[in-house]
Amino acid sequence: MRIIVIGAEGAVGRAAISDLKLRHEIIVAGRSSGNLHVDVLDEDSIARMFEAAGAIDAIITTTGKTHFGPLVEMTPAQFKGGLDDKLMGQINIALAALSKLRDGGSITVTTGVTNRDPIRQGANTAAVNGALEAFVRSASIEMPRNIRINCVSPGLLDVSAKKYEGYFPGHIPVSSERVGFAYTKAVEGAHNGTVFAVDG
Amino acid sequence: MRIIVIGAEGAVGRAAISDLKLRHEIIVAGRSSGNLHVDVLDEDSIARMFEAAGAIDAIITTTGKTHFGPLVEMTPAQFKGGLDDKLMGQINIALAALSKLRDGGSITVTTGVTNRDPIRQGANTAAVNGALEAFVRSASIEMPRNIRINCVSPGLLDVSAKKYEGYFPGHIPVSSERVGFAYTKAVEGAHNGTVFAVDG
Repeated sequence: MRIIVIGAEGAVGRAAISDLKLRHEIIVAGRSSGNLHVDVLDEDSIARMFEAAGAIDAIITTTGKTHFGPLVEMTPAQFKGGLDDKLMGQINIALAALSKLRDGGSITVTTGVTNRDPIRQGANTAAVNGALEAFVRSASIEMPRNIRINCVSPGLLDVSAKKYEGYFPGHIPVSSERVGFAYTKAVEGAHNGTVFAVDG
Repeated sequence: MRIIVIGAEGAVGRAAISDLKLRHEIIVAGRSSGNLHVDVLDEDSIARMFEAAGAIDAIITTTGKTHFGPLVEMTPAQFKGGLDDKLMGQINIALAALSKLRDGGSITVTTGVTNRDPIRQGANTAAVNGALEAFVRSASIEMPRNIRINCVSPGLLDVSAKKYEGYFPGHIPVSSERVGFAYTKAVEGAHNGTVFAVDG
């Protein structure tokens, strides 16, 4: 398969392709790096990326920023920032992919553990993850041309545990290898509308 | 208790206060009607509403529009419209209420069945509902001053079944009375971070 991966240089993105790259052509797309350039917040940029990519079987998105901060200090603008970035970025790609992927292709978006297992300062991230997971479940019943849509929701990655020390008390880090297998299941499997939770 | 209800003139809003109004002072807030005027998309308007209301024990929001339409025709702008209206409207109220409610007060937001039981054309609504439900679960672990936050997620209301005929095939309408009791549980009960699903 020919698979576009957006965000392949982040920890989750590297995990996402760790197994898939053994068997498939991975086309890395990023804002300023990779095989193709794309701004996921710009519909025209996304259209140009698909045009440049040619025929594509699967697309994986692992990108997006959310606001981390104490609930009592959170402003509507901070909350909205997460919607405009991580949520709309992945939604923009998913909506465009519906008409761009080959028949029978697949879309895989990425969330994270904060929806099912909340942490302090994580209310915005949880909301963005909850929105994406609900979108995937709902969109899955309306997919055209046998395209499938799924979500991978990794726990705290082993390689990121040091960086986020103190933010995820008691969360058992999950190996990047296991996260990679979840993306393999989403892309090579037959699931549609599934949220693949990967916990430690 | 003194309870502000935003959206009390809609079908869900009327259901929300059907039981609570028997025992509590209900202050209806709306954009252009009710005891108090408020634009939930305007932080200053929300601040003025709380100032005018005086001491408040509970706030209930049932407002907001989302985009209904076929997935393959959905544009990012249509999707974003639901985030900017139903999601941010209720988030704006919840964030403001954290500092405005009396100690031990409660916030109750409203979602709907499309997250747990998707319908065609409902992907935007599902995403908004998923975001609100995730926010409630996550915010609940960071609530200040013993304030609680919960969500009521009603199925298709009996009084709305005719209006939405054809959109919810096989959904059993739920009585407004049962929906009212869910809001009573959220306001008078001790729950925090709970999504009260009310199905037919």
